Amino acid sequence: MAIEKAKKHGVGLVAVRNSNHYGIAAYYGLMAINHDMIGISMTNTAPLVVPTFGRQMMIGTNPICVCAPANRERPFCLDMATSVVPRGKLEVYQRQEREIPLGWAVGKDGRSTTNAPEVLRNMLARAGGGILPLGGEGELYSGHKGYGLSVLVDIFCAALAGAAFTANTYPKTKDGRPLPSLIGHFFGAIRIDIFRPVEEFKDAMDRMIRQLKESPKAVGQSRIYIHGEKEFEMAEKQRREGITLPGRVIQSLEKIGAELGVKCPWQE
Amino acid sequence: MAIEKAKKHGVGLVAVRNSNHYGIAAYYGLMAINHDMIGISMTNTAPLVVPTFGRQMMIGTNPICVCAPANRERPFCLDMATSVVPRGKLEVYQRQEREIPLGWAVGKDGRSTTNAPEVLRNMLARAGGGILPLGGEGELYSGHKGYGLSVLVDIFCAALAGAAFTANTYPKTKDGRPLPSLIGHFFGAIRIDIFRPVEEFKDAMDRMIRQLKESPKAVGQSRIYIHGEKEFEMAEKQRREGITLPGRVIQSLEKIGAELGVKCPWQE
Repeated sequence: MAIEKAKKHGVGLVAVRNSNHYGIAAYYGLMAINHDMIGISMTNTAPLVVPTFGRQMMIGTNPICVCAPANRERPFCLDMATSVVPRGKLEVYQRQEREIPLGWAVGKDGRSTTNAPEVLRNMLARAGGGILPLGGEGELYSGHKGYGLSVLVDIFCAALAGAAFTANTYPKTKDGRPLPSLIGHFFGAIRIDIFRPVEEFKDAMDRMIRQLKESPKAVGQSRIYIHGEKEFEMAEKQRREGITLPGRVIQSLEKIGAELGVKCPWQE
Repeated sequence: MAIEKAKKHGVGLVAVRNSNHYGIAAYYGLMAINHDMIGISMTNTAPLVVPTFGRQMMIGTNPICVCAPANRERPFCLDMATSVVPRGKLEVYQRQEREIPLGWAVGKDGRSTTNAPEVLRNMLARAGGGILPLGGEGELYSGHKGYGLSVLVDIFCAALAGAAFTANTYPKTKDGRPLPSLIGHFFGAIRIDIFRPVEEFKDAMDRMIRQLKESPKAVGQSRIYIHGEKEFEMAEKQRREGITLPGRVIQSLEKIGAELGVKCPWQE
């Protein structure tokens, strides 16, 4: 709808309410670039993040995605949670029995902790603590900026859309049964040619991308990336060689398949 | 211009080129809220920031500002450099002869350092190193997200506007004399009533702000802030009590005044 609006009027902005988890933010952002548009996609989420100086999960990992086409280079595709890490990262460290770095998550007291299992237990029980916004604890590394970006997403996806915000995105009945989710999204499509000939824009993107990638590397580093580049390369590899699935995911797919009487492709 | 466009068409987006330092991002963002619009303001800047895994200043502190009106509460006003700190912060630590925290800036080798005077010397001489993006060094604390936000600003303010980007915003002649600056900006105004009745939006903003502020505090903290709140309070205090100026600024103003034959208000 945003793309159709932009085709007619130059810019299309669409807010969505009464929704649920929308998958991958970049899936929608990338739709715009095939139409020579800049694509914007945001969503609020379940509350997992603690505001700066707080100790209760009040905001989501609220991702922001912006995509822009280039000419010879791959598109720019920023798709970032506004938290310092996603919850999945804590689970990986828990599985590996490693301490998490200070500045990723806080305990019940709202202070930074290295104890992933405790944070995950507390998050599940909503007992206090949670993931920190991008920039970490307090203001020393500008955690208030990540916190501000997550509020920004709640404003566009909820205050503007009439969806639920802060800790109210997944409501429950008084006796704890889940009600329909009240997640909101925001999508934008901006036609490049209302500002500048598309080829000039794409050439500028190419030059910007090359200048960044070709700039000198830090000691110990061999490569500077552009956002989306790692994921595009992975997709190309998997299209060539097939998709690698962890054993647990295979087992889980086979179990669901058996329940529904459907065979997985590798079982046929 | 963005506000006028939004009055007529619901949304107004304007890109600017051939410009220079535009002052305070929030000055422009706040213009929109008096018209019951969301205001957006971005600019690219002189290159001061090192991309993730790089060691040369290739991008600006490129601020992003988004403002939204509330009803009884003060407006939301996020105005954030996409770097972890501004250059001024390094200068404060230098003056106080303090070490800067690891994760703020890198030396010539592109690795995190605590030595503010050395970083500032290298930055001035463009000898390598510079300020880190929001999220710090490498990917451990998601420095690639701050890096991505700064590229996003260059895309809107330069690739879209036809302005200069990366390290080319302040060009010089071959023998080092400064040429006119080629900074770009991007402004947006979004009419709230094209999505939802303004009063409903503002009431949602009030509820969101109160829920965040009233949520439990981390140990040792007494207050959770909303973005812009500290600055609004400071402005109110200074409107009441006058503006406190450091001695050096007073001397500098008096010197300029003497050169121009103008007295400062406190000299009359």
